[in-house]
Amino acid sequence: MNKINVTVWNEYGDEQKEKSVADIYPNGLHVTIAGFLNKDGGINAKTALFFEPEHGLTDAVLDNTDVLIWWGHRYHDNLDDRIASRVVERVRRGMGIIFLHSAHKSKPFMLLLGTSGSLSWREAHERSRVWTCSPSHPIAKGVPEQFALDCEEMYGEPFGIPAPLQTVFISWFQGGNVFRSGVTFQRDNGRIFYFQPGHETYPSYHNEHVQRVITNAVKWANPIVKAVSLDCPNVQPLEKI
Amino acid sequence: MNKINVTVWNEYGDEQKEKSVADIYPNGLHVTIAGFLNKDGGINAKTALFFEPEHGLTDAVLDNTDVLIWWGHRYHDNLDDRIASRVVERVRRGMGIIFLHSAHKSKPFMLLLGTSGSLSWREAHERSRVWTCSPSHPIAKGVPEQFALDCEEMYGEPFGIPAPLQTVFISWFQGGNVFRSGVTFQRDNGRIFYFQPGHETYPSYHNEHVQRVITNAVKWANPIVKAVSLDCPNVQPLEKI
Amino acid sequence: MNKINVTVWNEYGDEQKEKSVADIYPNGLHVTIAGFLNKDGGINAKTALFFEPEHGLTDAVLDNTDVLIWWGHRYHDNLDDRIASRVVERVRRGMGIIFLHSAHKSKPFMLLLGTSGSLSWREAHERSRVWTCSPSHPIAKGVPEQFALDCEEMYGEPFGIPAPLQTVFISWFQGGNVFRSGVTFQRDNGRIFYFQPGHETYPSYHNEHVQRVITNAVKWANPIVKAVSLDCPNVQPLEKI
Amino acid sequence: MNKINVTVWNEYGDEQKEKSVADIYPNGLHVTIAGFLNKDGGINAKTALFFEPEHGLTDAVLDNTDVLIWWGHRYHDNLDDRIASRVVERVRRGMGIIFLHSAHKSKPFMLLLGTSGSLSWREAHERSRVWTCSPSHPIAKGVPEQFALDCEEMYGEPFGIPAPLQTVFISWFQGGNVFRSGVTFQRDNGRIFYFQPGHETYPSYHNEHVQRVITNAVKWANPIVKAVSLDCPNVQPLEKI
Repeated sequence: MNKINVTVWNEYGDEQKEKSVADIYPNGLHVTIAGFLNKDGGINAKTALFFEPEHGLTDAVLDNTDVLIWWGHRYHDNLDDRIASRVVERVRRGMGIIFLHSAHKSKPFMLLLGTSGSLSWREAHERSRVWTCSPSHPIAKGVPEQFALDCEEMYGEPFGIPAPLQTVFISWFQGGNVFRSGVTFQRDNGRIFYFQPGHETYPSYHNEHVQRVITNAVKWANPIVKAVSLDCPNVQPLEKI
Repeated sequence: MNKINVTVWNEYGDEQKEKSVADIYPNGLHVTIAGFLNKDGGINAKTALFFEPEHGLTDAVLDNTDVLIWWGHRYHDNLDDRIASRVVERVRRGMGIIFLHSAHKSKPFMLLLGTSGSLSWREAHERSRVWTCSPSHPIAKGVPEQFALDCEEMYGEPFGIPAPLQTVFISWFQGGNVFRSGVTFQRDNGRIFYFQPGHETYPSYHNEHVQRVITNAVKWANPIVKAVSLDCPNVQPLEKI
Repeated sequence: MNKINVTVWNEYGDEQKEKSVADIYPNGLHVTIAGFLNKDGGINAKTALFFEPEHGLTDAVLDNTDVLIWWGHRYHDNLDDRIASRVVERVRRGMGIIFLHSAHKSKPFMLLLGTSGSLSWREAHERSRVWTCSPSHPIAKGVPEQFALDCEEMYGEPFGIPAPLQTVFISWFQGGNVFRSGVTFQRDNGRIFYFQPGHETYPSYHNEHVQRVITNAVKWANPIVKAVSLDCPNVQPLEKI
Repeated sequence: MNKINVTVWNEYGDEQKEKSVADIYPNGLHVTIAGFLNKDGGINAKTALFFEPEHGLTDAVLDNTDVLIWWGHRYHDNLDDRIASRVVERVRRGMGIIFLHSAHKSKPFMLLLGTSGSLSWREAHERSRVWTCSPSHPIAKGVPEQFALDCEEMYGEPFGIPAPLQTVFISWFQGGNVFRSGVTFQRDNGRIFYFQPGHETYPSYHNEHVQRVITNAVKWANPIVKAVSLDCPNVQPLEKI
């Protein structure tokens, strides 16, 4: 059985500039994420970065990507529109994509979902509790009914997303907010998962349950069909007219 | 314009037996609910009770019901199966139905949704915050982004419901839980809304926002089409075979 | 890897009474269906029949069933309510279920979906064309964009079902009708697929594409989680109240 | 009660260049559509055209638009990206939008839905039958179970759209195809309806049922909430952290 080829894309800005981030993710959070994914025998994870040519997302890289993971924050507006369109086109043809945390305002997220991605937010060192709403969803396999993250950035409702295919997780925040923190979508042949945990100043990607969710999501988003044409063919009738 | 005919159905058990309930709803919570609904010029609300003949839900009563509101708790299993089926059949033909609070385990709820309605719960005098996730849904019209209920029974995820058409409200609970507290469904021609607030020992139905939600839900659930046949007709071809 | 245990349930009435049916399915259509499923190395299919004790669906049988396939027509109303409830309860706990053709009016279908299952119909030896609407759905894997069945019973819209999770197939009928012929649902932990082809007087279950769809559906409906409790636990707070 | 302000946007290219189109829509199909809408006492419909400054969609025009109707075909790629973004932003804030026929490849459609909008097509003077799948949807009010269009362009599945909120209509085509021809979506606060009939060389917008569907859709898409901010506010905690 072939391994699932994953590309973990990261801005890799904060880790290089902020000591508080570098202390948690010394080589960048993309390395942490690719690292725990590669512990799974069925996954082959590599990384790509904003500052690389073509943002690291050349056609050659995407040809070898079954599932793309996206972490961005500061440079959303600086992403080349052509690369955003290229990613969107790949998802439509079947590539899976997992948007993490602040990716809710990235160009590919907004182009694929069509909504604003708006939400309320707060950095207040507060506890978050991630609740599993759909315990039989493949992304929830092996994830407990509830787990706590002692510090997370608060993201709160109303969340500007279309009605999800399924709401897998909803998060509770100490300061009084709630958030649909794990939601699935599909666009043409491509499966999409958004997952809220992962503020750069907190160690969420070192949490075993967060790692389990992302690993499961990679397997769920692995395409059934890829490289399908999305043209509009002019076809002959099958029956006499 | 005709008024919307609402029947507010209640077990009316606890109010008569428990002083703590009677203090809040001296005439039964059905009277409170019908009372605030009748302040709306477009609604004509009456009541029906478990202990009445045919549980108060005769064909004559249902013939004059556009939207049925259901509050039950102790006597779920004692409801006559024929009356449960009658209610279900009416919803399929177009009658709207609003399930309140503990109605998540009532026979009509389970027959219409097909799921267990399971959830976790706790009576601990804790604060709940109801968050509006779909601010442009008709049921959320005039409802603030968030409102607090100082005491509510906790109902927690995972909630055993099918994926809702739309998730209008999600509730936060002080003790660390979350709950999809306002969700819509449709079964054949009938619209269905479930709303979590309303434990009998707390004054939630006196809260202005709860009243606004239920009033909005009545208008939303008012049938577009009613008394449609649900037979399976044997039909002739429209085209030559 | 364990095989998926499938039980193919059939009324097995028409095959024994009608020569036209027996000519196509001499040992009953359950034997044909179990036969092609067992050609897949990952599936272990057995059969169960209406006239067996407990309709062949004892607890022991269901303990060893990952996915149940249901074909019924004449005896819908004669099914013991206790067996219908037992099947529904198993689906809620995680067992997959595939409803074929006329099962749209069976007790388990109606109890799980909550709708009437109503549709229009016609037996007129007409051609049907099954179109794949969701080519990347696991149930459509290896199924062509469209395939024809030279004779099928017409089932037509409006179809009394809830909005499906995904509409995988829509059928065209020669006489001018359309039908959502392949639709998915979930109830608690159990996955549900309805598939229209399979009138007893036509050889649809001998068609390679129909066989591919049902085989795929078995794999899709194989439970992620099974035997989960659906109680309503009284729980302690996680946070100080 | 205020009237619903509708802007009917049209490329108005074919009507001026092709006699076959001008014969059916001598003043442009936008005038036909605005004309039948204005027969409804609750609607005030105006028009806007591709060749006008800012494609006729200035901020002043959109400030006075509750529901935008979109018909385009030849000039999809020539639409100014800034105007496409302006329309998308308005929909997110609450403006309703109805995409007709070939608008499935327009920039606003693709930006809002996120999919390719791909489909198969054929101009063969064939009959189409529009089936009502959701008879109790407001858009189907007063529309028969089925109506025929003697000539329509065939649009066929698979249709590259996200799973709709509700599938209101499915069309049958004489040549053997089917198509989800009436589907609803929501993006942030804005309601979206796509409707297939309306090829420029056929008189579909003179058909009474097509007119009924579009008139109903305008009322359904009329915003509940408008001009809501879609910012991401930094908020204070409601509870002690």
